[in-house]
Amino acid sequence: MNKPKRHIFVCTSSRPNGQQKGMCHTKEGVNIMMKFIEEVEDRDLGGEVFVTNTGCFGICEKGAIVVVYPDNVWYGSVSVDDVEEIMEKHIEGGSPVARLEI
Amino acid sequence: MNKPKRHIFVCTSSRPNGQQKGMCHTKEGVNIMMKFIEEVEDRDLGGEVFVTNTGCFGICEKGAIVVVYPDNVWYGSVSVDDVEEIMEKHIEGGSPVARLEI
Repeated sequence: MNKPKRHIFVCTSSRPNGQQKGMCHTKEGVNIMMKFIEEVEDRDLGGEVFVTNTGCFGICEKGAIVVVYPDNVWYGSVSVDDVEEIMEKHIEGGSPVARLEI
Repeated sequence: MNKPKRHIFVCTSSRPNGQQKGMCHTKEGVNIMMKFIEEVEDRDLGGEVFVTNTGCFGICEKGAIVVVYPDNVWYGSVSVDDVEEIMEKHIEGGSPVARLEI
């Protein structure tokens, strides 16, 4: 299969039983995910950058959480307004956005 | 924060709106995730190996899907019975289980 060059995981507090507890879905998690998907499409990166929603990472107080692999870069307190910067500097440019790292 | 040495993502078809469509939750996705969590605890790897459930990866026909980062190893048709082997050979031993790779 075609593996991603970078994989963006966005916490949407999606529990495996269908419940949404945790915090990130109350902190724009879903909107952040949608914005990443939109940005990946706009930049024509669909084949090399994947976006996936997740369940809770267990660090809710630092949410909304975004994790980028294989870089193993963890972002906290992410808002929809931060997505373009993460895309530009990190996903395309290769340099993580230090001010959002946890 | 304490970043994971390895991060196991298990598709449980958890959509951000709380719905479970996709396929993996019908293919033991939730039981696979629970088994990984149990194995990580039993092997006392909680601080270095994280387990997180995800929404659909878009390759449902190959489910149940398990992805291990930062290795970027993708497993398909995973069953609960495969979890111990993945833990033993890959997560602890460092060698992916070739027969399950997609």
